[in-house]
Amino acid sequence: MQEKLILVSNDDGYDALGIEALIDVAKEFGRIVAVAPVEGRSGMSHAISIKNPLRLNKLWEKENVSMYSCSGTPVDSVKLALDQVLDRKPDLLVSGINHGSNASISIIYSGTMGAALEGCINGIPSIGFSVLDHSRNADFTLAKKYARVIIEKVLQNGLPENVGLNVNFPVIPENEFKGIKICMQTTGVWKEEFDKRKDPSKQDYYWLTGFFKNHEPENETTDEWALTHNYASVVPVKVDFTSYPAIEILKSWNL
Amino acid sequence: MQEKLILVSNDDGYDALGIEALIDVAKEFGRIVAVAPVEGRSGMSHAISIKNPLRLNKLWEKENVSMYSCSGTPVDSVKLALDQVLDRKPDLLVSGINHGSNASISIIYSGTMGAALEGCINGIPSIGFSVLDHSRNADFTLAKKYARVIIEKVLQNGLPENVGLNVNFPVIPENEFKGIKICMQTTGVWKEEFDKRKDPSKQDYYWLTGFFKNHEPENETTDEWALTHNYASVVPVKVDFTSYPAIEILKSWNL
Repeated sequence: MQEKLILVSNDDGYDALGIEALIDVAKEFGRIVAVAPVEGRSGMSHAISIKNPLRLNKLWEKENVSMYSCSGTPVDSVKLALDQVLDRKPDLLVSGINHGSNASISIIYSGTMGAALEGCINGIPSIGFSVLDHSRNADFTLAKKYARVIIEKVLQNGLPENVGLNVNFPVIPENEFKGIKICMQTTGVWKEEFDKRKDPSKQDYYWLTGFFKNHEPENETTDEWALTHNYASVVPVKVDFTSYPAIEILKSWNL
Repeated sequence: MQEKLILVSNDDGYDALGIEALIDVAKEFGRIVAVAPVEGRSGMSHAISIKNPLRLNKLWEKENVSMYSCSGTPVDSVKLALDQVLDRKPDLLVSGINHGSNASISIIYSGTMGAALEGCINGIPSIGFSVLDHSRNADFTLAKKYARVIIEKVLQNGLPENVGLNVNFPVIPENEFKGIKICMQTTGVWKEEFDKRKDPSKQDYYWLTGFFKNHEPENETTDEWALTHNYASVVPVKVDFTSYPAIEILKSWNL
């Protein structure tokens, strides 16, 4: 059987602990090519570099793992990997492990999930992993153990066409962990409260801040519910923004 | 009746012809506050500025229109507008008119649609408009005429909760125009072909380029089909990445 080829990326940069943890798990399953941003690119969503050219550098190679840095976004990293680095379509794309939650609406802001969704669009079984701790020294012990289980299942079973997984782990002691729960994306919103400041020249500037507002905290089928109840959440995801129920409504407008 | 408050943004920058065209249409319906990037931010998707603070400048005010520039992304512009500029939630958000198509999978890379989707997430009826011509001097005549019709209908009827519209216009003579078609997002992918070059120091760099591959060119319910057959496409959109059919499949894995 041909050795599995696994593409790894993230948005915290090639030197983050989270990608190290993910490579450590994924390398048991095949040959790893990691292409990750040269520095943190959190909040980059699905952004691509149109105005600026990209740099790609091979950093190191060790046993069955090679690591490249990309000057662009997480999605740029995946596109460069597929077009310029890999000799064939990978069998799996894994992104993360992200330092911080990408549950609910955070999926759309996340560079880690941007990379995973770019894999989905390209027909590659793709998984984004995150832990609910954005600190640089987040504990990945639990996440690694169950990421291994999920990767193994995906390699065994495959995923439906263009479908990927958004996987989030609570950061709790293992004896409190309740298991893996298949969920839907929670409806919610980040409420902005910009921090307005004056620079030394007395000009205003603004820091983006805010808090997450869950619109359906009691809904047990959602990823936020799972995470607050000590489950890991697995949401099958696909890039189709169409609101199918709204199509009939709009047709009735006779535009 | 209270005057309508309409938030306008885009990704081509506050001085693009497209946003001028959109304001020209929208100002018939109420008071306009435009907050747009200080320069072109195409391809910025749903990116937000986490590492850098933002600048916001009021540029001008004329009759019922005021224009602000934002140093960040299109989504930053919408967030700043909602939190720092507007005195109440707007009745409508319109984004564009984008110079270039945002049909099919391009929706996920687009800053113009990022701004519109940020409106949807915040429960504001939101519409992104685009024309299939990315040149700076694109012709917006047809787009303006039918954007007016669509805006009027949305203000009259509202939109379902968290649903917005992705509207694309062909650039053709009006006598060839077939009308407005309600569609679903086409399944397709941008195939990358990076343009690899050497800089003056003989180091490699890469320009992102590529072409669109339509996976379902014969599907008459899709936006790409509508556009290639001289219709304007209107796709109702919502930010929910969940693949509902995949949930049952994953549950059967007993993770």
